[in-house]
Amino acid sequence: MTRRHQQIANDLREAISQGRYPVGTALPSESELATAHDVARGTVRQAVSTLLAEGLIGSRQGARRVVLSTTPSQSFSQLRSFSEWAHAHGHSAGGAVVSSTRRPADPEEAAQLLLPVGAEILHVARLRTLDGEPVLLERTAYVDWIAEAVERLADDCESVTQGLYDDVGLVLAHGEHRIDAVTAGTLETRELGVRRGSPLLRLRRTTTTAEGHPVETADDRYKPGSVVFAIRNSTQSNPLARKPAG
Amino acid sequence: MTRRHQQIANDLREAISQGRYPVGTALPSESELATAHDVARGTVRQAVSTLLAEGLIGSRQGARRVVLSTTPSQSFSQLRSFSEWAHAHGHSAGGAVVSSTRRPADPEEAAQLLLPVGAEILHVARLRTLDGEPVLLERTAYVDWIAEAVERLADDCESVTQGLYDDVGLVLAHGEHRIDAVTAGTLETRELGVRRGSPLLRLRRTTTTAEGHPVETADDRYKPGSVVFAIRNSTQSNPLARKPAG
Repeated sequence: MTRRHQQIANDLREAISQGRYPVGTALPSESELATAHDVARGTVRQAVSTLLAEGLIGSRQGARRVVLSTTPSQSFSQLRSFSEWAHAHGHSAGGAVVSSTRRPADPEEAAQLLLPVGAEILHVARLRTLDGEPVLLERTAYVDWIAEAVERLADDCESVTQGLYDDVGLVLAHGEHRIDAVTAGTLETRELGVRRGSPLLRLRRTTTTAEGHPVETADDRYKPGSVVFAIRNSTQSNPLARKPAG
Repeated sequence: MTRRHQQIANDLREAISQGRYPVGTALPSESELATAHDVARGTVRQAVSTLLAEGLIGSRQGARRVVLSTTPSQSFSQLRSFSEWAHAHGHSAGGAVVSSTRRPADPEEAAQLLLPVGAEILHVARLRTLDGEPVLLERTAYVDWIAEAVERLADDCESVTQGLYDDVGLVLAHGEHRIDAVTAGTLETRELGVRRGSPLLRLRRTTTTAEGHPVETADDRYKPGSVVFAIRNSTQSNPLARKPAG
């Protein structure tokens, strides 16, 4: 069942995407929306929070909210799942395990996964393809309680996210990401087919369950010209930080 | 005057940073917090929203919120202002204008600034230094209504953000960012002192006023190993998107 505030959020999202409220114009005030939809202001406020979280509207200007974008931001699962993302953009996704090893966590992995240094992790290197072209080399360290389920996945498993959900009901709920640029080394030169020293976009991420338990920490390196990462922020809500490297 | 919900947010932030609620543990429920602080639940809810926006706590688990981090996310102004950021990390920031030209907007600039192609913009290239070391080459296109104020800034102006605020009261409120990796060209080789072909972390951003009017669109290229960009997300709120390049 769709709840009333979800219906109102859907209506507003549709009105924005159809151009009824172009970028830079204001939505009606909460009290106007409450009257128009015949609901309490609290219900309107919930609908407005949804659009705020999606980056469609911005902080309050007087009684009104300004439209910032006509397309909602990408879902967490589409960002997390390379395969789901590829499909959403009309591409086919492929994957192949390059190596899979149980070994002691190095200090960086241990810090990210909240483990003692030397605790056993599963390290997997995977090549991901888009329409058959290699675009991404993933190196992932998994905590031991999910390692067996990861090892049960097929080597050419198209969606690791879906596979782990289907097998053990794993849901990843929070992520921390660090983005920088690095040069291609031996493994990337071979697997991604790029020249040694090519600039690669690197995204390192640590993902946790809803309860905040770390599940995996990964180092993803993208072939030049394949993807960009996009982020919205505002004075009200800034998820993006610049940090000194190292 | 600090309002009640801000005081409660401050108290909770301090309790989290002092380790009273470690990462992975739950905060008290909204009704428990309301009783403890002797306020209405709506007031607690506002305080909780603040901590959510700062990435300190996550989505609801039953009646409770889980602690995700003990440090609030960086402020919008600290991300926007290279100088403010440098000071917060104990470094001195410097700047020097490499070139400043009024010229017609190219198609990309026009699209980002919501201008017709060919409308006049001010294009400025600036070198930014950290403790005297060049780390960042900024190329910024400004809309014409702010161009004169930008031209009035000193060539070695340490904080452009502060300068424009002091001069004309400009406040930037929303940003859209795209992050990728590129190779150093002639200008970066000369100004950043890197080898031709070195991998540079690039952040392109378009920043608007609170009303959503674009002010500037920039292309910032960072010297290898100088900074990383960090982003938090969750199933409830995901500001980060992976997009096909180009």
